[in-house]
Amino acid sequence: MRGRFLSIEGGEGAGKSTQVRRLADALRARGIEVIVTREPGGSDGAEAIRDLLMQGAVNRWSAHTEALLFAAARADHVEKVIQPAIGAGTWVISDRYVDSSRAYQGVAGGIDDAAVLALHGFGSRGLLPDRTLVLEVPPELGAERASSRDGAGADRFAARERAFHEDVAEAFRRFATAEPDRVRLIDASGDADTVAAALEAELADLLP
Amino acid sequence: MRGRFLSIEGGEGAGKSTQVRRLADALRARGIEVIVTREPGGSDGAEAIRDLLMQGAVNRWSAHTEALLFAAARADHVEKVIQPAIGAGTWVISDRYVDSSRAYQGVAGGIDDAAVLALHGFGSRGLLPDRTLVLEVPPELGAERASSRDGAGADRFAARERAFHEDVAEAFRRFATAEPDRVRLIDASGDADTVAAALEAELADLLP
Ligand SMILES: Nc1ncnc2c1ncn2[C@@H]1O[C@H](COP(=O)(O)OP(=O)(O)OP(=O)(O)O)[C@@H](O)[C@H]1O
Ligand SMILES: Nc1ncnc2c1ncn2[C@@H]1O[C@H](COP(=O)(O)OP(=O)(O)OP(=O)(O)O)[C@@H](O)[C@H]1O
Ligand SMILES: [Mg+2]
Ligand SMILES: [Mg+2]
Repeated sequence: MRGRFLSIEGGEGAGKSTQVRRLADALRARGIEVIVTREPGGSDGAEAIRDLLMQGAVNRWSAHTEALLFAAARADHVEKVIQPAIGAGTWVISDRYVDSSRAYQGVAGGIDDAAVLALHGFGSRGLLPDRTLVLEVPPELGAERASSRDGAGADRFAARERAFHEDVAEAFRRFATAEPDRVRLIDASGDADTVAAALEAELADLLP
Repeated sequence: MRGRFLSIEGGEGAGKSTQVRRLADALRARGIEVIVTREPGGSDGAEAIRDLLMQGAVNRWSAHTEALLFAAARADHVEKVIQPAIGAGTWVISDRYVDSSRAYQGVAGGIDDAAVLALHGFGSRGLLPDRTLVLEVPPELGAERASSRDGAGADRFAARERAFHEDVAEAFRRFATAEPDRVRLIDASGDADTVAAALEAELADLLP
């Protein structure tokens, strides 16, 4: 039996990494073997590409170059980590995946969604999660959570204007509308227990 | 007036880097402003990607991931170095360019030529040289020249079998047949002066 592949998406500070850990624990408590991974990165090669993407000036890479680098990192991550795990029956939870490229490179880079998906089709054979859980919080709450965690929190992607974060949130909502079976929106403004329960409820049909 | 964009292609040890330098000198002697560059690399970002491509085990990257990384490096090279130069009226000579991706990722990686060109269209807006000069030598002569230069000469691309080098040479010949105006085959088995003269002859119609 193939393992399930789940991705957790959402804006900065929405609580993705927190919920990835909690969900992994909850699945393990049910006897499911789980690995947790993240993007960009998640494999040795992809982490090396991540370093290129995260270091240097905000405008180090053009939008098109950045989209190619994200697609290359994801291709390595899928080939080296995700496919082997699900092929062996292990569940995979990824902290961000292709929908982040669609939302961020699409909105910030002005790259067509079709082009992002074409690169994903080429590099990663178009592999999509069995389910994608989008954590929704008002941008201020995300900013507050992110800064409560790491003070400045100013990596290349966090230092954006409000309109940008709203465009990203809108992009995730569009994906949920277009693929209602795969992509589910979760109200993530409550406490971590409440969010975790909402998340598990959206996986009920996938659980053994 | 836009500068001309020239690429020099061919197998390992064909004499590309030697002829790039000579051609630059010959053009400068005619009063043309010229920059010399190379692939993979040629810009700061692309050189960083080059390091990822050249380091590590031969199978570090899958063929698809490698094709995305080459396309990303080329996109940066075109945006940061080639387009600004030709836009300013400077001629550009690149030691390898997209035809190397078509020949190497195509032959070694089994990536469709159409896919390599699609990535090039996305990342680099499909920019092609005004002329591409392919230096042809028998594989043994290339191997001999490369090893006379740097002894082992065993980077990730040089350590290949004979059949591979023949496939690459055949790919370059196909490109010349398909685009006879842009791509010219040059017999590069003679001495460096003879090859330089043959190369300049193929540029006669572009010279001021
Ligand atoms: N439901 C919640 N209620 C209150 N605080 C939370 C909640 N979920 C997470 N946090 C806290 O908010 C901060 C950000 O959470 P987390 O790191 O999980 O977010 P993230 O979406 O992974 O952020 P980033 O986009 O920066 O990776 C952390 O300090 C975390 O403890
Ligand atoms: N026409 C020639 N006749 C004899 N030797 C040559 C000729 N052209 C180049 N060489 C020598 O052959 C060696 C390889 O040449 P060069 O470095 O220019 O090849 P290259 O195609 O750039 O190789 P690589 O693919 O490894 O970059 C050098 O030592 C150079 O001096
Ligand atoms: Mg996180
Ligand atoms: Mg050379």
